[in-house]
Amino acid sequence: MLEELARIGRDPATDGYLRDAWSRADLELREWFAGETARRGLDLREDRNGNLWAWWGDPSREPGVVTGSHLDSVRQGGAYDGPLGVVSAFAALDVLKSRDFLPRRPLGIACFADEEGARFGVPCVGSRLLTGMLSPERALALQDDEGDTLADVLTKSGRDPRGLGRDDETLAQVATFVELHVEQGRGLVRLGRPVGVARAIWPHGRWRFDFHGRADHAGTTRLPDRDDPMLPFARLVLAARDAAARRDIVATIGKVRVSPNNANAVPGLVSAWLDARGPNEADVHALVEELTALADTAEGEAAAGAGPGVRPGVTVEVSEESWTPVVDFDHGLRERLAAVVGGDTPAPILPTGAGHDAGILAAAGVPSAMLFVRNPTGVSHSPEEHAEQADCEAGVVALASVLEELCR
Amino acid sequence: MLEELARIGRDPATDGYLRDAWSRADLELREWFAGETARRGLDLREDRNGNLWAWWGDPSREPGVVTGSHLDSVRQGGAYDGPLGVVSAFAALDVLKSRDFLPRRPLGIACFADEEGARFGVPCVGSRLLTGMLSPERALALQDDEGDTLADVLTKSGRDPRGLGRDDETLAQVATFVELHVEQGRGLVRLGRPVGVARAIWPHGRWRFDFHGRADHAGTTRLPDRDDPMLPFARLVLAARDAAARRDIVATIGKVRVSPNNANAVPGLVSAWLDARGPNEADVHALVEELTALADTAEGEAAAGAGPGVRPGVTVEVSEESWTPVVDFDHGLRERLAAVVGGDTPAPILPTGAGHDAGILAAAGVPSAMLFVRNPTGVSHSPEEHAEQADCEAGVVALASVLEELCR
Repeated sequence: MLEELARIGRDPATDGYLRDAWSRADLELREWFAGETARRGLDLREDRNGNLWAWWGDPSREPGVVTGSHLDSVRQGGAYDGPLGVVSAFAALDVLKSRDFLPRRPLGIACFADEEGARFGVPCVGSRLLTGMLSPERALALQDDEGDTLADVLTKSGRDPRGLGRDDETLAQVATFVELHVEQGRGLVRLGRPVGVARAIWPHGRWRFDFHGRADHAGTTRLPDRDDPMLPFARLVLAARDAAARRDIVATIGKVRVSPNNANAVPGLVSAWLDARGPNEADVHALVEELTALADTAEGEAAAGAGPGVRPGVTVEVSEESWTPVVDFDHGLRERLAAVVGGDTPAPILPTGAGHDAGILAAAGVPSAMLFVRNPTGVSHSPEEHAEQADCEAGVVALASVLEELCR
Repeated sequence: MLEELARIGRDPATDGYLRDAWSRADLELREWFAGETARRGLDLREDRNGNLWAWWGDPSREPGVVTGSHLDSVRQGGAYDGPLGVVSAFAALDVLKSRDFLPRRPLGIACFADEEGARFGVPCVGSRLLTGMLSPERALALQDDEGDTLADVLTKSGRDPRGLGRDDETLAQVATFVELHVEQGRGLVRLGRPVGVARAIWPHGRWRFDFHGRADHAGTTRLPDRDDPMLPFARLVLAARDAAARRDIVATIGKVRVSPNNANAVPGLVSAWLDARGPNEADVHALVEELTALADTAEGEAAAGAGPGVRPGVTVEVSEESWTPVVDFDHGLRERLAAVVGGDTPAPILPTGAGHDAGILAAAGVPSAMLFVRNPTGVSHSPEEHAEQADCEAGVVALASVLEELCR
């Protein structure tokens, strides 16, 4: 199944994937999901927030066990982050059917909308809306790089934007959620195990730094006359790395927007997105506070670091775009899964720095868990993201056993 | 006339102009030029490289005196850079006609194509092609941000890309060229004079730095495992400022492209454009050499500046995109103009850091000169670019006197 998906949204120049939420590639992936659902005689439902559900049994009579993940990607992402969980869900169901297993409760496969947030900047939009963590007002006003709002984009793809928002009816159908995902690190490689169970998701957030200066001619404006926002931005990049290294957490500036972005003009505005995560919330908040303080006095700092004469005319605005507190997965559930998956030697239980829909559901009180499949390089959000065929199969077998256990 | 142009290509959100070469706005500006030409009974010619010429008299019989500038803009540029020279040319011609002046040689108004290079990255494309300084092969292969080549764009606007290249016939029609331009600095403000004459154009160039790293997940990739090209790029920004300040020249990084540019991914590639200029070539070259050497050892430098553990996996490529040696304007001509413009106290003669079509023609051996009109803030390449009405009128009168003198 992963092979069938391989061609959708692939950039032939890089082999990376471009599967923005609600893009043509994403709509094609959703069609594929509908096809796999129909082929197995499952019931397809799309909830008010654009999340897809394939049900074996009727969850409106009794809440069910749900597995799944998402199909959208980051820009130039890999083939496994998201799709491996959805494909493994269908494959695990096939395994159960081949064993003539009859679930004693409904069994569902979920495909969450816009998990990566590549297009609108906010991750896990589908599950956040479902659980009420993101307000429909804020979601609908989100804009992509072309200036189209989520409301525009949903309307264009035939959805009713007025339907968005917390959906207790759908949420009540989910008794337990298990998400399988390619590991985004080398924890399982170090332990020599193909499959693991998630312990917790690090607290993580995204902050936007807008440095406002004044656009000017690059040839004729003397250095002391400039208000160049590129300088304090550059200092932020280096300071973020340093501040993260000191605290043993991670911080990344991976997205930048420069205006007017002319080679022969001093920029008027540089916007930078800071992603910061770590095992505990205090460290992440301390890092953001340190960097905000630095940026507030950016001109002085830039002056110190980059020679005299930087005019104090650059101002900065810092805004929090998202924040997800630490998510500790249900202790009982994760121990039970580790035992089912590992047999005699329980599967390892690992933390992760990545956000997932399972984390959103867990935070909303749905007993949730995650399985990780070994990733030889640990690389993710890149075309080099990979999992060996044998490990993917081990993941399917593990997921089938977990579903069997939970539906017993 | 400047008011008629004010609405074309203006971004209502910022009041900045978006007049990329061969864009719809640019084509509309070219139409306006054709209209002003026709209204005055001048002969309109478009040469093989897309430059427009409005002639009073026949330059194929005898080379003429030409004035003019360009109509395209940098992105989010101002209303004066370029258009002031074209509008003043028509206005000066109107002044001469109102004086019943009959030129003894042909008088021409030029509008050069793609002076700013905002779209394809190379400035003065029209005059460089005309003079043979830019090869048609290289020009036609230039790409804009959408991946369209100049060849595509010219074909779409009905031009024949095969016509591009050195055009001795057109060049031979230009005996002298005088370009009027808003000053891009505060030299005239300091001297308290409305109009000045150009001494020289600083040597200037544009270099591209491509930092290749490895795209990775921002949440799960430990700092020591990253090859993050954003770090050496940030160091380059600060080092460029420092190196320019030490040499008392200017260096700017105003254009950046990040790939994939996701908030939750370590970038795989960061490209940055360095613009550097100064009174003498040796200093500019020394700066570029210093920065190239720094970038080549970027990972080591980044490690020193940004904490331990930056992996030595980032590589850099540096390429020169354009280089223009110093242009000293014709000494006799500039003294003559300063006398004509200034009367009893000759107009001031000032250097500039900005490139212009007049500099390209001068370098190609055409006797050329420039007049500058006072700019109260000195700001340019920005919506704040400005010249007072009275100074613009003084510029027109000065240009009319200069043309009268040269056509006598």
